[in-house]
Amino acid sequence: MVDDNCLFCRIVSGELPATVVYADKDSLAFLDHRPLFPGHTLLVPREHFETLGDVSPSLIEPYFNAAQLLSRVVEAALEAEGTFVAMNNRVSQSVPHLHVHIVPRRKGDGLKGFFWPRTKYKGDGEIKEVQGQIRAALKKIQT
Amino acid sequence: MVDDNCLFCRIVSGELPATVVYADKDSLAFLDHRPLFPGHTLLVPREHFETLGDVSPSLIEPYFNAAQLLSRVVEAALEAEGTFVAMNNRVSQSVPHLHVHIVPRRKGDGLKGFFWPRTKYKGDGEIKEVQGQIRAALKKIQT
Repeated sequence: MVDDNCLFCRIVSGELPATVVYADKDSLAFLDHRPLFPGHTLLVPREHFETLGDVSPSLIEPYFNAAQLLSRVVEAALEAEGTFVAMNNRVSQSVPHLHVHIVPRRKGDGLKGFFWPRTKYKGDGEIKEVQGQIRAALKKIQT
Repeated sequence: MVDDNCLFCRIVSGELPATVVYADKDSLAFLDHRPLFPGHTLLVPREHFETLGDVSPSLIEPYFNAAQLLSRVVEAALEAEGTFVAMNNRVSQSVPHLHVHIVPRRKGDGLKGFFWPRTKYKGDGEIKEVQGQIRAALKKIQT
């Protein structure tokens, strides 16, 4: 399925230009034009899926094989020391077509750990309550 | 393979406690004790792999199937509006055993897009040079 109004579908179809760095039958990867660092790559499925949760089961393996390959390749190509590999689903997602960001990282590159302050659970009660919520949602989604 | 000095291997083996929210034969997921937001989940392969690039090919499908499932489940459980799904490979990686962070997100939760300033390529020359570097590294890794 292709969404004619979707920026990434239009890149996949060739209607819009992009600086392509990788292509296979299921996926396409190109450079983000506003990179966190040079080499910042976006990997998209050719088919239109909005979020990770929406991707068809048959695509998981080829898509994440490509993500794995690109995590190695981007790191090597930019002579980086590591990578940041991330997806924003719905919130903070600029284009509503799933994309994995693959960003080369270096120690001292100015990005610190998780970039924002972490919180704490209010004791054992709160963490167990959240555990219960997740387990209940899991049960619901699996039945 | 299990690394006796690895915090996450010791959680997988049951030697150390964790607030487990999901388990299957290949993977285990538990709550991060210093969450970005409550419900922040870490999904680890039972086998010890340091980074995404190191994971054995046979694990990609089951591991990312679990990540997909958890992205739906964590969002539903916490009544969130989206998720942030991310891996730090080597740089900013607190525990050197691959883990996917699955973080529930809400609009206005205080995290902005990509949390740090983006840069720009110095014109067509630089972006094409980086494209060439990545393509060359890809060719090298695939041969």
